[in-house]
Amino acid sequence: MKRKPVVAALAVIAAAGLMLEAAAQVKPEILVKQRQAAMTLQGKYFGPLGGMAQGKAPYNADLVARNAAYLDVLTQMPWDGFAASTKDVKSAALPEVFTDPAKFKEAQERTQGEIARLVSISKSGDEAAIKAQILTVNKACDNCHESFREKR
Amino acid sequence: MKRKPVVAALAVIAAAGLMLEAAAQVKPEILVKQRQAAMTLQGKYFGPLGGMAQGKAPYNADLVARNAAYLDVLTQMPWDGFAASTKDVKSAALPEVFTDPAKFKEAQERTQGEIARLVSISKSGDEAAIKAQILTVNKACDNCHESFREKR
Repeated sequence: MKRKPVVAALAVIAAAGLMLEAAAQVKPEILVKQRQAAMTLQGKYFGPLGGMAQGKAPYNADLVARNAAYLDVLTQMPWDGFAASTKDVKSAALPEVFTDPAKFKEAQERTQGEIARLVSISKSGDEAAIKAQILTVNKACDNCHESFREKR
Repeated sequence: MKRKPVVAALAVIAAAGLMLEAAAQVKPEILVKQRQAAMTLQGKYFGPLGGMAQGKAPYNADLVARNAAYLDVLTQMPWDGFAASTKDVKSAALPEVFTDPAKFKEAQERTQGEIARLVSISKSGDEAAIKAQILTVNKACDNCHESFREKR
């Protein structure tokens, strides 16, 4: 059996920076890296909103609307990275992620729901309501972290 | 001058997981981490499309459309992380990122444009055209990596 064409094809794919994620199991370490990447970007785009809601940074309605839209997408991204295969990979995830998936899913959906509400409210022009909703989002983030992430 | 209230306020913000990104300079190391996170997620959502375009994974029109929409947002995210302040932070970025910003910006915009075209074409139901556009996106990624990222 000739193996070379397969190897060559794989080399081409690797060179092209492509992964066969859809066809094969993604390595647990990669799943962890990807979910942490989604969390990092949530921090990037939520951080400034938190500062505004607390009056620590000047309010910028356009930035809130843009970041809320980004967060609406980003909060779809981390969860499939918490696959059972990642249970033993070193990370800040608590065992409860895997032992209480129903509660974990509820916490995810609460966060997604509050972000969706922020997207909606961010179009209203009501600064006080927008700031209040930013703080509500923050509570949803904290709520999930308290139950499912190691204290830092 | 009393410094304590400032420190206390910062501690409260840190505890809430908030960053004053909008108000203060973000640390170069954080900028690098954030831009790498965006690249990691681009890999997560582009990888399976590459596999499909090359016939290595079964074609899934819904997945292409979803991932293209995600990529449309993700390809807005890495670039502000290549701030001049990150010039000396260890990463795979080549000096050309900072010495040829016009060419770098052109490469970013080419990638964004090809992703936007993929979003559009992914709604057409024309599998051959969609696969061809996936490969065109891949070329845009590679084009930028060749000029601006260390060989791996």
